[in-house]
Amino acid sequence: MGFVLWCPRCGVRLREGEYRPWCPRCKGPLEAEGLPRLGPVLGEGSTPLVEVGGGVRAKMEYLNPSGSFKDRGAGYSLRLASMLGYDCVVVDSSGNTGLSTAVYSARLGLRARVFVPRRASPGKKVLIRAAGAELVEAASREEAARLAEAEAERCFHVAHPTSPLFLEGVKSLGREMAGEARSGSTVLVPASSGTLLLGIYRGVKEAGRDFRLIAVQSPAAYSLKGLVPELGLTGGGEGKLLDALLLARPPRLGEMARAVVDSGGGVVVVGDEAVPGAVRTALRKGFLIEPSSAAVFAALEVLREKGILPGDTILVLTGSGLKYASLLEKLSAGAI
Amino acid sequence: MGFVLWCPRCGVRLREGEYRPWCPRCKGPLEAEGLPRLGPVLGEGSTPLVEVGGGVRAKMEYLNPSGSFKDRGAGYSLRLASMLGYDCVVVDSSGNTGLSTAVYSARLGLRARVFVPRRASPGKKVLIRAAGAELVEAASREEAARLAEAEAERCFHVAHPTSPLFLEGVKSLGREMAGEARSGSTVLVPASSGTLLLGIYRGVKEAGRDFRLIAVQSPAAYSLKGLVPELGLTGGGEGKLLDALLLARPPRLGEMARAVVDSGGGVVVVGDEAVPGAVRTALRKGFLIEPSSAAVFAALEVLREKGILPGDTILVLTGSGLKYASLLEKLSAGAI
Ligand SMILES: [Zn+2]
Ligand SMILES: [Zn+2]
Repeated sequence: MGFVLWCPRCGVRLREGEYRPWCPRCKGPLEAEGLPRLGPVLGEGSTPLVEVGGGVRAKMEYLNPSGSFKDRGAGYSLRLASMLGYDCVVVDSSGNTGLSTAVYSARLGLRARVFVPRRASPGKKVLIRAAGAELVEAASREEAARLAEAEAERCFHVAHPTSPLFLEGVKSLGREMAGEARSGSTVLVPASSGTLLLGIYRGVKEAGRDFRLIAVQSPAAYSLKGLVPELGLTGGGEGKLLDALLLARPPRLGEMARAVVDSGGGVVVVGDEAVPGAVRTALRKGFLIEPSSAAVFAALEVLREKGILPGDTILVLTGSGLKYASLLEKLSAGAI
Repeated sequence: MGFVLWCPRCGVRLREGEYRPWCPRCKGPLEAEGLPRLGPVLGEGSTPLVEVGGGVRAKMEYLNPSGSFKDRGAGYSLRLASMLGYDCVVVDSSGNTGLSTAVYSARLGLRARVFVPRRASPGKKVLIRAAGAELVEAASREEAARLAEAEAERCFHVAHPTSPLFLEGVKSLGREMAGEARSGSTVLVPASSGTLLLGIYRGVKEAGRDFRLIAVQSPAAYSLKGLVPELGLTGGGEGKLLDALLLARPPRLGEMARAVVDSGGGVVVVGDEAVPGAVRTALRKGFLIEPSSAAVFAALEVLREKGILPGDTILVLTGSGLKYASLLEKLSAGAI
């Protein structure tokens, strides 16, 4: 295992083959050198890219094995964890990462503990337990993070917003899209922890292409505010419906902003009032996706109205709607 | 549209390009000549084939856009319906076919009415409505079928157990698997209406390969009883947990039996008592599938115990577990 993790902020270098979820000195996100290229663990990746109309296509990342793009990151990092000799895994996540960790841990024979805030969605909790993980409910999101960290001495900590391994896994999406679209194409990406945005950015670069990246954020977690060009704002409200986009302080924020600016892109902010319409648009095109994923359709509408969407465009559809049956029905029927 | 539908039972031939869900004289299933080859409508097909261990692999058909293999049949037949000028679609189904029809109708701009028995699963009803279809609840399964038939004069009737178009769509799975496994491989197939079994059989033949087909049935709908070799029986109980395998009298039963016998295969019957264990086995391997799909793992166990599983084997995993969160949790925890 000839990889080395190091800290771009304070310069710390770990021992060869040593994993830490973040820098042991400054707690910043680590970078990696010499990571191996690994194949899929459970068929993740190679998702369909289909027509939406008007030069726009959709990348159906919600058709991954646990229903989200997180499977690329979980598959890669947990396979590596297994190769490193870990037999247990911890993660704090109230959503798709928790389920993905549960599924890939089961696949790889690792024991998984998933720490969630008590008020996390009951449907996702149920699925995480069904997949065979131990679910531990904490009083808050912060408490869940603390509990996971306390176990990270013995077990592999997924730590998706900081881990360079998780990011390495998501890069396969960027490489894949680089083979499916020309340089100069625009990609609309829901941006929360930054894993998706940065994974695509790095994977595309690695494959020698250049895509313009447009981040889509919720007003409740508008972390790119003031850091990148604001291309549009749609819908009022708090942003509660976009539950997968609620991470307010992503640890790789500076790098996210640089990636967006370097790509010639910007940010579109989508509030709750635009979500029901976006969900209906997605469903009308046949995309059974979660509300947070549908936000890209609202962003697309804004960009079209402003006339700033030249050339080929790809929407990244991140999470499955099968986990959100009741909410989707209400949004579809106009009851929200 | 140079295709012709005809009845192998009574010889009726329809006009060129005319569609009927079954023979207008004897009500038997029709055959088709000259159907066009069509590409995917929404990225259905090309699903992952992954290792299970011991020479066994799993075809992850539950990763299709609406969460089941039915998308291959719905995609093909609804695209053809659209090309034939239909603007509305009807179907009677309490499960995956109903949702698949709703999603593909939305995609193709067709109005869909889905007739379900009142006691159908609330979760699936909610998803069918969310996808934009009109859901009509009938007193019983038979009443749902009658109501759908009454509308089939004006609208395209999906009629998946009889329609040669739906079967043509599912054949793409057989062709795909023919490219992924050697002749002589064994395939374990949940068998209810026969669409899946016959689609695979015909697709594989068309591609010049021969697979041994082993049907997996519920005791509650053991339609192949006495018609093909019985290779095993596991679990008692009624078979209620296998809700996708409850069609007692498939219209293509004779052809299903001939396909199984011709392939050198047989049937394994899986009762409710074997389902929790099968679901846990599936989840332990990372497969988040519905209980009806997990039955193939119980069948695999029986065949292994009897030592009648030589060579390469493929399990067809048909439907997503994301629609069954609560039931999966109970089965996973041993509470059922
Ligand atoms: Zn540091
Ligand atoms: Zn006839």
